[in-house]
Amino acid sequence: MMDELPLEQVRTLLAVVDEGTFDAAASALHVTPSAVSQRVKSLEQRTGRVLLMRTKPVRPTESGEVVIRFARQLARLERDARAELGMGAADGLGPVRLPMAVNADSLATWFLPALTRVPQDPPVCFELYREDEGHTTALLREGQVMAAVTSSPDPVAGCTVRALGLVRYLAVASPGFAARHLTGAPARDLCEAPLIVFDRRDELQDAFVRGLTDGASGASRARHHVPTSEGFRDAVAAGLGWGLVPQTQADPLIRSGRLLELAPERPLDVPLYWQQWKLDSPALALVARVVAESAQESLRPV
Amino acid sequence: MMDELPLEQVRTLLAVVDEGTFDAAASALHVTPSAVSQRVKSLEQRTGRVLLMRTKPVRPTESGEVVIRFARQLARLERDARAELGMGAADGLGPVRLPMAVNADSLATWFLPALTRVPQDPPVCFELYREDEGHTTALLREGQVMAAVTSSPDPVAGCTVRALGLVRYLAVASPGFAARHLTGAPARDLCEAPLIVFDRRDELQDAFVRGLTDGASGASRARHHVPTSEGFRDAVAAGLGWGLVPQTQADPLIRSGRLLELAPERPLDVPLYWQQWKLDSPALALVARVVAESAQESLRPV
Repeated sequence: MMDELPLEQVRTLLAVVDEGTFDAAASALHVTPSAVSQRVKSLEQRTGRVLLMRTKPVRPTESGEVVIRFARQLARLERDARAELGMGAADGLGPVRLPMAVNADSLATWFLPALTRVPQDPPVCFELYREDEGHTTALLREGQVMAAVTSSPDPVAGCTVRALGLVRYLAVASPGFAARHLTGAPARDLCEAPLIVFDRRDELQDAFVRGLTDGASGASRARHHVPTSEGFRDAVAAGLGWGLVPQTQADPLIRSGRLLELAPERPLDVPLYWQQWKLDSPALALVARVVAESAQESLRPV
Repeated sequence: MMDELPLEQVRTLLAVVDEGTFDAAASALHVTPSAVSQRVKSLEQRTGRVLLMRTKPVRPTESGEVVIRFARQLARLERDARAELGMGAADGLGPVRLPMAVNADSLATWFLPALTRVPQDPPVCFELYREDEGHTTALLREGQVMAAVTSSPDPVAGCTVRALGLVRYLAVASPGFAARHLTGAPARDLCEAPLIVFDRRDELQDAFVRGLTDGASGASRARHHVPTSEGFRDAVAAGLGWGLVPQTQADPLIRSGRLLELAPERPLDVPLYWQQWKLDSPALALVARVVAESAQESLRPV
């Protein structure tokens, strides 16, 4: 199907999704809004599918996402080819861009030091998206990112996946918090004491508690949402609640006495995976290699 | 208008928006999908407006957002009244929830220490959303959050606004980066050297450069996106690019020699504001007072 798609229409669809409206796409492409509308309609007739939901901003349908991913991969290949031909700087193409999605705890611990090892000659621009794994998958599917660190081993269509290693999480709380809330049976205490979660979708703590209590998770108790990795750790250290913190972030605070480990016999190991487009991009291959090496040093073996 | 809205229909609309589909709302409310659909249609007939875009997930229209905000405020008032009447714990209502939106740099510096000063008796659950100010406004308008730290002084409908203070940003880079990229005229160097921005919408650095150069912003040079406050600072310290870092985060690294201040005569002061619902909630009033006090200690006076 793909090689029969009229590329001008495909690029127009991409512009509409990126700009959010037909009018904005028209002004970005220097054509009239009715030309934009006409091209999208032709593409929909040719593919026999509705490609855009006409919301504000517009959203691609599932079929639309396939075409959008194709459009982004096309733009990428074109850019790489031009860079290899030395056509980059001359016509303002700029450096290679590598959009990637990373979960917050990786970004706060091992991922950024890994990126600083990537040689910057020629320069490579890292465009990081900080996302939980559910949305990461959508970003890969739409082609918004070329690669992602995710906790899901299921490859997105058009992507390869490889295991990076395990992140160890420890259940911790401040000594003051433990003295106030954690004086009885450990499992019941952790089920009822105030809890910190990353956001509404963070189920790590609940899963941990269910493992201790044969199913009860204390869903109705006080729970704070603190949606940054460092803020989460700081909120635990400040005594707002208990929570699961990556061992590399918890260890210094445990040693200095600001955090107590609550269940030393029950660490939680979460596997991380690297997913990336099946695409022959030298810059992406270089980053993938450096990330895999750093993961091997920083994470626990699977 | 509001006091004539049938509350069962209003609550049903809220469930549809929160659950994302009519079917999910039906199962959350223990009624049939056709009952849900019927209630939403009746509410649309009564208000004379389309309230929902039938997308997946559904989205409220602008009129729908007004009703949704009313529904959330209603739920809040009911909850507060029941808590004051001592009906909280008895029927599993749980602690008071305070959803708030905060920009990333505030969350990484002064905001979390402020929250730890709020007495936790009775417990108050902080549900923090980390958002740039554009999306913050949408969260306030939909009633998803009750309050927000934002850089916009324009009050969202139904909200009050007050100034908190100024955050000072310093242009910084690592000494190695400065030796490689910043050896000529400062304004031209900052316009052309690799740059770190928070995300696609972060225009702080570009605005700063335009102020130095009479309008040029070097839009085509290498720019990395690092969407966490601590990661941004770490990426600058690692030499990936220069960037504007809050003074409280930059100062320790300037003192230890890991960062250089690039334009000591041109700090950038960004005002912050507190917006909150016009709603008589004791818990919200308490948090607003503590936040204002902490801002006065941590931020620069306006």
